[in-house]
Amino acid sequence: MQLKAAPLEIEAGGPLVVVMNQQDAAELGVISSDRIFLKHDESHVISILNISTEDVPGELGLYREVTHRLGVSRGDLVSVEPARRPESLDHIREKVNGQRLTPWKIERIVGDTVERHLSDIELAAFITALHVHGVGMEEVEALSRSMVWSGKTIDFGRSPILDKHSIGGVPGDKTTLIVAPIVAAAGYTIPKSSSRAITSPAGTADRMEALAPVDLRFDSIREIVENVGACIVWGGSIDLAPADDLFIRIEYPLSIDPLLLPSIMSKKKAMGSTHVIIDIPVGVDAKIKTIGEAEQLASDFIELGSRFDMHIECAITEGCQPIGYNIGPVLEARESMETLMGEGPHEMVDKSTNLAGILLEMVGNENGKQMAHDLLAKGKALEKMREIIGAQGGNPEVTLDDLAPGGHTYDVPAPSDGRVLWFNNRDLVRIARAAGTPSSKGAGVKLFAKTGDRVEEGKPLFRIYSESATKLENAVRMLETQRPMEVGAKVGEDMLKKRIGKPTAPSREFILER
Amino acid sequence: MQLKAAPLEIEAGGPLVVVMNQQDAAELGVISSDRIFLKHDESHVISILNISTEDVPGELGLYREVTHRLGVSRGDLVSVEPARRPESLDHIREKVNGQRLTPWKIERIVGDTVERHLSDIELAAFITALHVHGVGMEEVEALSRSMVWSGKTIDFGRSPILDKHSIGGVPGDKTTLIVAPIVAAAGYTIPKSSSRAITSPAGTADRMEALAPVDLRFDSIREIVENVGACIVWGGSIDLAPADDLFIRIEYPLSIDPLLLPSIMSKKKAMGSTHVIIDIPVGVDAKIKTIGEAEQLASDFIELGSRFDMHIECAITEGCQPIGYNIGPVLEARESMETLMGEGPHEMVDKSTNLAGILLEMVGNENGKQMAHDLLAKGKALEKMREIIGAQGGNPEVTLDDLAPGGHTYDVPAPSDGRVLWFNNRDLVRIARAAGTPSSKGAGVKLFAKTGDRVEEGKPLFRIYSESATKLENAVRMLETQRPMEVGAKVGEDMLKKRIGKPTAPSREFILER
Repeated sequence: MQLKAAPLEIEAGGPLVVVMNQQDAAELGVISSDRIFLKHDESHVISILNISTEDVPGELGLYREVTHRLGVSRGDLVSVEPARRPESLDHIREKVNGQRLTPWKIERIVGDTVERHLSDIELAAFITALHVHGVGMEEVEALSRSMVWSGKTIDFGRSPILDKHSIGGVPGDKTTLIVAPIVAAAGYTIPKSSSRAITSPAGTADRMEALAPVDLRFDSIREIVENVGACIVWGGSIDLAPADDLFIRIEYPLSIDPLLLPSIMSKKKAMGSTHVIIDIPVGVDAKIKTIGEAEQLASDFIELGSRFDMHIECAITEGCQPIGYNIGPVLEARESMETLMGEGPHEMVDKSTNLAGILLEMVGNENGKQMAHDLLAKGKALEKMREIIGAQGGNPEVTLDDLAPGGHTYDVPAPSDGRVLWFNNRDLVRIARAAGTPSSKGAGVKLFAKTGDRVEEGKPLFRIYSESATKLENAVRMLETQRPMEVGAKVGEDMLKKRIGKPTAPSREFILER
Repeated sequence: MQLKAAPLEIEAGGPLVVVMNQQDAAELGVISSDRIFLKHDESHVISILNISTEDVPGELGLYREVTHRLGVSRGDLVSVEPARRPESLDHIREKVNGQRLTPWKIERIVGDTVERHLSDIELAAFITALHVHGVGMEEVEALSRSMVWSGKTIDFGRSPILDKHSIGGVPGDKTTLIVAPIVAAAGYTIPKSSSRAITSPAGTADRMEALAPVDLRFDSIREIVENVGACIVWGGSIDLAPADDLFIRIEYPLSIDPLLLPSIMSKKKAMGSTHVIIDIPVGVDAKIKTIGEAEQLASDFIELGSRFDMHIECAITEGCQPIGYNIGPVLEARESMETLMGEGPHEMVDKSTNLAGILLEMVGNENGKQMAHDLLAKGKALEKMREIIGAQGGNPEVTLDDLAPGGHTYDVPAPSDGRVLWFNNRDLVRIARAAGTPSSKGAGVKLFAKTGDRVEEGKPLFRIYSESATKLENAVRMLETQRPMEVGAKVGEDMLKKRIGKPTAPSREFILER
């Protein structure tokens, strides 16, 4: 059948979709979700069919991705034939029915995902089945390998390659901005590719972006790492493991994350990492809630690493309250620089030197924590950070004054005398996001007290920063329903956390940050 | 945030989707799959966000369904705010995690499905979870009720209302076209709403359409049934249980059908049925493969019926080969009329009078099969069928000559002397569809022999009909790989069914017909 190309001003965001009129589809003997083979001149593509009741017969609506691949213009004739359904669909169905998938089958699924041959419906069934039936270690390994194969890899031509990764979920966790320069200052190579915030107020890439560009090209990353020994860049620009972004698109609305292990592992492998410290923060509002869960995840990481000749250790860390006193890209960049300058809070120093110390011990040093501490105290880490900032195109002479948060502020007073009992991290995140984070770099929250600290009625508990008066208002309005910090007489004495009088859906927010 | 409406010439086919530029989305603090609340004048709608990298900032792309609901034109300002995620998403997640859903939760999910508030990803997770974890009887009941509530119901103002339903999967099954007139000829009311083919060569609605219009409005259906006692119409035009079509869109590409029971039950309930005979054909290529499976399904149907005050009986029937000798809308309409005229094959008469007989006994008659047989033999059923055809707007005086199949034919010869050993129904279906069924009404296949029949080498085994020379060629070309009928010396003597020398995905085609 020949149909006239009708390019649509829209992209599917993943799958290769075309839209056909009901009549033409009946004529061709295909229905919605069937695969059709399109040909125009020398180009061809297999795409997924949507059926429309309103479109003009004789025309074929093409999503932008399909238009690009076929290289057609409006009115060009496209030859259209029914195509076989992809074999990977049978393997997805096997997983749905509870079978373990062989590496070969997993490779087909990941390959077809990256080729955009699977629809949202089919990918959602796959992700759901992985979540429900669980993912065995063989499958995790195969998924990781397939995800590496489907993207680029980077070879720095040296060894060891160190890395640090947090599975995230705690606001204000700027540890990478301290650990990477410490480790590089010790003479090791630590190329950090990091992510932007998805549901949090700031990802490491967002924090670093307050100091230097992070959206760098492949070649310049290699050059920077060669010269400086480290970088802190955005992974999204370098196409490592592209399957991951396509899976995240599906996982996010479902609030499930069965691909956590292969996602992280594939990115580390693509960077050529040989020694990796994984930070697993544990807390009621963090991604991992209990030490037991964290231990399970840690041993999975370690075993998986061994299958990839990668030395992995894990650190289970405190994750009940924000890390440090600042939340939001600029505020966190500033607190990181303060810490590198020797003026950071104890917890920042402790977490960073512990993680850097483990890494240093993993590559053969003794007293890693002390070594890390010295590099920090003697200003070597600060020096290295300035080198990194300069190499990435930022201002190496950046001062704290350069890192000014938004000019619209609101101080939230303590409701009574007492002590900070606990933090509701998710309420805090909501307020920081309402104020404009992560896209508005100067937005955020500064805490004046942490758990256990004594506060006085009417004195500020925390300050909201925003770059826009309207957003500040929005954030302040959220205080009516959100209670980011609880103040009481004595930690552990006031007991009621929540009162529930009618059946409601449990409050639950999903942390997808990787 | 205010954005300019940019209506897209496209419909999502289900969910209410809008497309926003990455920059605007970051500004608003939302990401793909988040819900946003749109307002324009007095209209508002909650829709699902897609994010585009290429669209113009400041514009909001609206799928056709959203444009209609908001009543906007290009350039109108739309106010845009983040919205809460629908509560039903939490319930979907509960099902994904293996919990049984309460009726109240199921109602929310079905309601949000019909309101188009759930994305393909979310619906696919729900359907997959139902398939994997199974659907308990309480859930089946709640799904059925919610699906009835979400659509129209029809009240014929009389009782009993009889019905017959086949769960399908056997080509050529035109039994409804005999059963309905027999039952109506006995003075009972049997309003048949039936479906069009999805993956088969003809559905009951397609067959009937060769005799009379089936795309009737609500009111005329009521009038016809009042006057004639029966109708055979297409269910798709009357919006009974609209959730079903939305679920089928998801089930088809996944080849899973966890909603079989609620789908059928909700449609029967919407028609006000009180006595229903369910036909469950069993055969290697049919939807149900074994008597055991059929028994399980039958008892589920009967229990479910009792929860809806509906008297249900099931008939397990032979489903290894096509029913009758004709496949394709016109050919099947013709064979039905032949059967009503007393010239049909024994199997058509046997199946129809058995099913009609059970229905007649369910409403209190004795010797139902004999009664059905008499109504058929005395021409009462034919007379009633002509009334139905006339009432629906067809020609009541239709003759067999009026029912002429396509003019392009090809006779497939027997490869050797012998007997027909078995049918590969799915190969036969593929050939009939290649010839043009179901959209080309005159296309199809006529069999000259059935299982066990003696055939002579070179004499025609079956004939392919098409309304187009090209399609006939396509169908004939399929004979190279498809073997719809196997001929051998003696039934049960030739043993090899298939040889497998390398690992391949198992051949599997999905029967979704309901």
